[in-house]
Amino acid sequence: MKNLKLVSRETQKRTIVNVSGVEIGRDFVVIAGPCSVESETQLLETAHAVKAAGADMLRGGAFKPRTSPYAFQGLGLQGLKLLEKAKKETGLPIVTEVVDPRDVSWVAEFADVLQIGTRNMQNFSLLKEVGKSERAVLLKRGMYSTLSEWLNCAEYILSEGNSNVILCERGIRTFETYTRNTLDLSAVPSIKELSHLPIIIDPTHSTGRLSLIASMSMASVAVGADGMIVEVHHKPQEALCDADQALTPKIFSKMMKRLRPLKSFLNNLPVE
Amino acid sequence: MKNLKLVSRETQKRTIVNVSGVEIGRDFVVIAGPCSVESETQLLETAHAVKAAGADMLRGGAFKPRTSPYAFQGLGLQGLKLLEKAKKETGLPIVTEVVDPRDVSWVAEFADVLQIGTRNMQNFSLLKEVGKSERAVLLKRGMYSTLSEWLNCAEYILSEGNSNVILCERGIRTFETYTRNTLDLSAVPSIKELSHLPIIIDPTHSTGRLSLIASMSMASVAVGADGMIVEVHHKPQEALCDADQALTPKIFSKMMKRLRPLKSFLNNLPVE
Amino acid sequence: MKNLKLVSRETQKRTIVNVSGVEIGRDFVVIAGPCSVESETQLLETAHAVKAAGADMLRGGAFKPRTSPYAFQGLGLQGLKLLEKAKKETGLPIVTEVVDPRDVSWVAEFADVLQIGTRNMQNFSLLKEVGKSERAVLLKRGMYSTLSEWLNCAEYILSEGNSNVILCERGIRTFETYTRNTLDLSAVPSIKELSHLPIIIDPTHSTGRLSLIASMSMASVAVGADGMIVEVHHKPQEALCDADQALTPKIFSKMMKRLRPLKSFLNNLPVE
Amino acid sequence: MKNLKLVSRETQKRTIVNVSGVEIGRDFVVIAGPCSVESETQLLETAHAVKAAGADMLRGGAFKPRTSPYAFQGLGLQGLKLLEKAKKETGLPIVTEVVDPRDVSWVAEFADVLQIGTRNMQNFSLLKEVGKSERAVLLKRGMYSTLSEWLNCAEYILSEGNSNVILCERGIRTFETYTRNTLDLSAVPSIKELSHLPIIIDPTHSTGRLSLIASMSMASVAVGADGMIVEVHHKPQEALCDADQALTPKIFSKMMKRLRPLKSFLNNLPVE
Repeated sequence: MKNLKLVSRETQKRTIVNVSGVEIGRDFVVIAGPCSVESETQLLETAHAVKAAGADMLRGGAFKPRTSPYAFQGLGLQGLKLLEKAKKETGLPIVTEVVDPRDVSWVAEFADVLQIGTRNMQNFSLLKEVGKSERAVLLKRGMYSTLSEWLNCAEYILSEGNSNVILCERGIRTFETYTRNTLDLSAVPSIKELSHLPIIIDPTHSTGRLSLIASMSMASVAVGADGMIVEVHHKPQEALCDADQALTPKIFSKMMKRLRPLKSFLNNLPVE
Repeated sequence: MKNLKLVSRETQKRTIVNVSGVEIGRDFVVIAGPCSVESETQLLETAHAVKAAGADMLRGGAFKPRTSPYAFQGLGLQGLKLLEKAKKETGLPIVTEVVDPRDVSWVAEFADVLQIGTRNMQNFSLLKEVGKSERAVLLKRGMYSTLSEWLNCAEYILSEGNSNVILCERGIRTFETYTRNTLDLSAVPSIKELSHLPIIIDPTHSTGRLSLIASMSMASVAVGADGMIVEVHHKPQEALCDADQALTPKIFSKMMKRLRPLKSFLNNLPVE
Repeated sequence: MKNLKLVSRETQKRTIVNVSGVEIGRDFVVIAGPCSVESETQLLETAHAVKAAGADMLRGGAFKPRTSPYAFQGLGLQGLKLLEKAKKETGLPIVTEVVDPRDVSWVAEFADVLQIGTRNMQNFSLLKEVGKSERAVLLKRGMYSTLSEWLNCAEYILSEGNSNVILCERGIRTFETYTRNTLDLSAVPSIKELSHLPIIIDPTHSTGRLSLIASMSMASVAVGADGMIVEVHHKPQEALCDADQALTPKIFSKMMKRLRPLKSFLNNLPVE
Repeated sequence: MKNLKLVSRETQKRTIVNVSGVEIGRDFVVIAGPCSVESETQLLETAHAVKAAGADMLRGGAFKPRTSPYAFQGLGLQGLKLLEKAKKETGLPIVTEVVDPRDVSWVAEFADVLQIGTRNMQNFSLLKEVGKSERAVLLKRGMYSTLSEWLNCAEYILSEGNSNVILCERGIRTFETYTRNTLDLSAVPSIKELSHLPIIIDPTHSTGRLSLIASMSMASVAVGADGMIVEVHHKPQEALCDADQALTPKIFSKMMKRLRPLKSFLNNLPVE
C-alpha cells in the first residue's frame, strides 16, 4: 500500500510488543475487564476474577467517549487510581483509553497500554501525542475505516518514534442490524500480509451480543489473531455502560478453557 | 424474527441435510471444484484431485450469472453432462447453480444440490421453483442482505415443501476494498440461534484473495460452520472466470490437512 | 467503464424513450399510482386523481416481490386487467413490474412499460427476456449496486435488441436507519456522463418517509433527472403494502404545483 | 430522537447563525475557497475571485487532517495570518478547521467560523472546547455517522454553551466507488424535521468529481439546504491537496449565476 513505510511488512517480518513481560505477537494474549471503571468493588472483583481465569492484562476505561453528552463519561483520575490499585493486587498490566492529547503524559503514568478508540482512530493530534509516549499503544480500527487508512494511522504513531503498536479489529459498520457491527476477521490475515504489527480482535463491541462472543473468540484464535480484548464485569446487569454485552466471570472462565487448548493445538499443527 | 415460521429454531433444533449420504449439519462438509465447468479435462482432473484431497462434494457452474453480458456465461447442458461424468468417475455428489425458474426441473436431473447464487437470493420465482424440487438447495446470502431477509428467502423454499436447505455465507458488500467482500463469520452463530438450518461458508468469493482462503477456512471450522464451498482449479491461471482466486489442488490438499484435524480436535473439546 | 458498449455515452448523446407519446428523456415525466393494485375502486380513484394532478403515467403492481412469503403477493392477472381498465378510462400509459421470465410476454400485453425491481436487477434471465420484448423497460438500480453493475444490466437488455430502457435510482442500502435507504442523487449526473439512457428517481422507496418526498422530488428536478416514480394511494392508511409512504392525492397535487414550475424555470435558465 | 435536548426541534423552530452579518439559516450562504492555504498569491487571488463571484464567506485550511503522515499538513499559524489578510482585503468572514483542543482558543482569534472535520466529528474533547468558544462552529457529518450520532455531537457543543452551530452534510461512505462518497441530500429535510440548526452541504468532498459539483449544488438549493461550502482554487492543477476537485474561479462564477436565481425563484413559489 502506497505511503506506508515504517509499518510495512517490507521493513520487517513481525513485531513483538512487550508489555511488562506479556509478549503481544508471540502467543494469544487475552485482555479482559469492564467497559468502564465504576467503583473499587466492581474493578477489584472483576480484576481478580479475570486473573484467576487466565487473563494476561486488565482493561478498564476511565475516560469514555459516549454518543450522548448526558451519558456516564467515566471516573477520570479516580478511575486511573483504581486501575493502579488493581494492578498492584493482581499483577495484571493495565490497558486504558486516552481521548485527549492533553491527557496523554499523565494517563501514561497509570497505563501500560494506551488505547485509542474507534472514534479517535483519525484524531491525528492524539496519534502524534501517543507516538511520543513510551507506552505501547492499542489502536482500534475506525468502524468506517479501510485497512489502508488504519495502517496509515499506525504510521502516524511510528513516525513519532513509538513502534510498540498493537492493532485491534473491533468490527466495521455495515447494513446488518442483528449484530452491532460486523467483525471483519479477514482483517487479521490481511494485516499480517501488509504489516509486521500484531493484531488482536474485540468480539464484544463488534458483535454487541453476548451469545456470539465465545464463537467469535474461537474463530479469532483459528484465524491467527495475536489476542483479544473482551468485556467482563462482575455484575453485568449493574454496569454503567454496555450492560448487555459484558461476560460474567463464570462464562469468561469457561470460554478460556476452550481458547487456550485451541491455541496449543494450532501451535502444534504442521505449517500449511 | 417476525414472519419466520418453518425455518425458525423454535420449530426444531437442527436439520441434517442428507445428500447421497453426505450429511450437512453433522460434520464439516467440504464442497470443492471450479467456478465454471470449462472442459472435460479441466473438470475431471479437478474432480479427481479434490476427491483425493478429501472433498465431500464437487461444485461447478454450468450457468454463470456474470456482470457483463459479454463475459463467458457457462456451457449449459454440455457442462451439466460433464458434471454427470465427473460424478460417475469420482462418486462425488454435484452442486451446481440454477438461475432460471424454467431450468429447475431439468437441471435437477443432473444436480444433487441446486445452488441459488447471491444475485438471485431474492428471485422469488426461482425460490418457489426450487421449493417444489426434491433436490437439496444451497442458498447463498445476498451480498446486500440482512440475516432476516436471508432467512425469509429460505422460508420461501420451505413453504413450498422443500426443507433441505443449506445456507451459505459468502461475504457482504462493505466499504472495504482490500477484500472483494467482507466475510461475515458472525453470521454462523447468529443463524444457529435463529434457525435449525445448516450453514456453510464460501471463503473464495468473500475474500477474493487466494492468500486469505486458508485462514478464513480455519476460522470457519472454529466458529462452528457446517462446511465450506471453495474454488479449486487444476490450472487456475487458465480459468475462464475467477482465475485469480481458485486454489491449486496442491494448496487445497495442504489446507485439508489442517482443517480435518481441527474439526476433530473441536469435536472432542468439552462443551462451553 | 469497461465492457459497456451499447449503453455508453460514446455511442450516442441521449435516448428519448417514447411511450404512447410520453417522451422520457425530454421533459420531466411523472409516474404515479399505488404500490400494488388492490381493488377496482382503489385503482380507478387513484388513477383519476393522479391524472387530474398532472401525472404522465400510471404505476401499479400486480406481482409484488415481498420479503416474506406470507405477505400479500399481488393480484396477478386480475390486477393487470384492472390496470387495463384504468388506462382506458384515463388514457395514462401503464408501468407495472414483471418478476418471472415466463410472464414477460403476456404481461407485456397489459403494460406500456415493464418494470424490473431492485431485487431483480441482476436476474439476467429476466433481463434477457425483457430485452426481447417490444415494451419499454424501467430498470431500477439494485439497492446494493454500483453504477457500473447497473449499466451492465442495461447492457444485457440492449444487447438483446431493446433499446428503450429507462433507469431508475431508488436508493442504496447504507448504515443510515432514519431513512429506509439513501437516495443517491449524484447518480443522475453520473449516469448522464456515462450513458445516453434517461434516468428517473423514486423518492418513495428510497426515503421511506412521507415527509421527505416533496423535498427530494424538488431536488430531483434540480439535479437534472428525467422524471420520477412516486406512490399515491386514494386511502393510504388502507394500503396493503407501503401504507406508511404513499402520498394522498391531495398532497401529490400540491407537490405537482411546485415541480412543474421549477422544471419550466430551469429550462429557461442560461446553460452553465 | 432520544437524548437530544438542546438541538431538538421541539425546543425552537429554527436558529439563524449570524457571522459578521452573514445569516446562516435565512438565505442560501455560499462558502468558497481553497482546500488548504498554500501561499499568499494563491489565497488572495482565490479570495478576490470568489468574492467577485458572490461568495459570502472564505474557506481555507491551515491545519489539514491527512490520511498519511507524509502528506502536506497545512501551514499552521502562517496560514491563519494569510486568512486574516484575505479577510481584511475582501471583507469575507473566515471558515477554517481546528483539529486539536489545545488550538481552539488561539485559532478562534483568526476564524469567524471554526470547522470540525468529518474525522473529528466524535472527537468529544474538541467538541467540548469549541462549545466553550464564542465562535460559530461548522460541524461536518462523520462519513460513517447516523443523523442521530451527528445531532448528539451538536448537542455536545450546545451543552457547553455555544448555540451557533451549523451542520454540514459532506457525503457518507458507501460501497459506490464512482463518487468519493455518497452525498446524502435527504439529510437536509431530515435534519430540518429533527432540529432547529441550519444545515449546508459540501458538494466537493462528497462527490470528489468536478463534473458533478454544479448539479449537486443546484439540487442542494432545491432540497432546502441553507448553503454550501465548495472548493475553489485559482490554479487547481497546482493545488497541494484535492487538486482534482477544486473549481476554477470561472466555473464557480458560472455556477453562482444559476444558483442565486434558483434560490430567488424558490423563495417566491407558493408554499406546499
